[in-house]
Amino acid sequence: MPHTKSLRNIKLVIEYNGARYCGWQVQPNTKKKSIQARIEGVLSKILSEKVKLIVAGRTDAGVHALAQVANFHTGSNIDLEKLNLALNGLLPHDIKISAIQEVGSNFHSRFSSKAKLYRYTILNRRHSSPLMQGKVFFYPHSLNLRAMRRESRALLGKHDFSSFQASLGKDKNPVKTIKKLSIIRRKDLIYIDIEADGFLYNMVRNIAGTLIQVGNGRLKEGELSGILSAKDRRRAGRTLPAAGLCLVQVRY
Amino acid sequence: MPHTKSLRNIKLVIEYNGARYCGWQVQPNTKKKSIQARIEGVLSKILSEKVKLIVAGRTDAGVHALAQVANFHTGSNIDLEKLNLALNGLLPHDIKISAIQEVGSNFHSRFSSKAKLYRYTILNRRHSSPLMQGKVFFYPHSLNLRAMRRESRALLGKHDFSSFQASLGKDKNPVKTIKKLSIIRRKDLIYIDIEADGFLYNMVRNIAGTLIQVGNGRLKEGELSGILSAKDRRRAGRTLPAAGLCLVQVRY
Repeated sequence: MPHTKSLRNIKLVIEYNGARYCGWQVQPNTKKKSIQARIEGVLSKILSEKVKLIVAGRTDAGVHALAQVANFHTGSNIDLEKLNLALNGLLPHDIKISAIQEVGSNFHSRFSSKAKLYRYTILNRRHSSPLMQGKVFFYPHSLNLRAMRRESRALLGKHDFSSFQASLGKDKNPVKTIKKLSIIRRKDLIYIDIEADGFLYNMVRNIAGTLIQVGNGRLKEGELSGILSAKDRRRAGRTLPAAGLCLVQVRY
Repeated sequence: MPHTKSLRNIKLVIEYNGARYCGWQVQPNTKKKSIQARIEGVLSKILSEKVKLIVAGRTDAGVHALAQVANFHTGSNIDLEKLNLALNGLLPHDIKISAIQEVGSNFHSRFSSKAKLYRYTILNRRHSSPLMQGKVFFYPHSLNLRAMRRESRALLGKHDFSSFQASLGKDKNPVKTIKKLSIIRRKDLIYIDIEADGFLYNMVRNIAGTLIQVGNGRLKEGELSGILSAKDRRRAGRTLPAAGLCLVQVRY
């Protein structure tokens, strides 16, 4: 749809449980629906026009979002309160719109964003959790958080993160800036929060997998820094499961 | 199994997501398994003897537990560390044993308990939550928590709670003592915590349903107290869904 001045630009904040989906975007070779297709389908139905969503972060299969952001242009002058209610009424239980507003014509969910905050959650105790299942990664062995925090400092700032990019990632620019990285324990849960101006494919899950190797002692002091500068995916730790990952915030 | 001195008495602390089950106990007319049957089946397999669990609180279909307590007597002298690992290995993802210990022969999960703490969780905002779905009761209208707290004081102490007992409840003694009742808001979540020496069938869900009527103004000042003294189930509010309820703690 051409972006002309007569169209309204609508911004959505979206919460979803990614478990049933192939990710934000449509993927080949899967029977699972994409979150984007689900929302576009409902929007197109309500507005009786084809709607195309522009998203802030294309989350992978199984990844959750507390506050994903997407926008679309529309010729409709539907009341946004009504649109919000209609959307949530027609969307499935695992995708809901938490906020909707009209924004300036130059707002672009991805290009206008300054940073995104992802949280990777590790359940670190002896037994897995029936009540948190599907939202956390269960790791029963002890982790040295002080070492994880110390080594993680090497990742702060602007770097080529190729070592933490999935082999099938095709990002033309592997240089990203990590603005904040914190590792916090709250009882049995460890939160790895990473805020960056952009993320490579599987970057958070690969960093979290490498930090676990720091925490369990497999990687010694200084090794994480060496992995980063090697720019070689084979050097870093394994990709942790999608269920532990959540897009928490998009900053503009 | 007869309770003799030669048998060990083993106490389990159990976390479960009740969604897939007909409740703690076996129920007629349902294809759903009971949590008790699931655990007894695995225990009997590991110990090669028939095991019967004595439970602290027989939770209903769909109700969750963070720390249910059950005990059983066994002639086996299996190492409890090993038993714990074997149990969690064989139990499904939505039932896990968080602690196991040998207790004195006179310990009885129900009769020895001094109090149980149940939490009813209400998600109180405009849209439901994909990430908390199945663990909370979604209520989008505004609630006057001050009124709910003020009126709830009438429930504290020893009372005949017949007004809050489900019609199919068969508890011979409807007199229970509520030791604590707190209503707390944390952002969009409202927690109704009720600690009592015992609970009637659906009691917490009926109290929570009645407190919502106080919060939305349908019940005026003093009416909750009148409902309690009426000892008539038809006077109280509706039974809120099981998904919002969780057995949080059993005190001994």
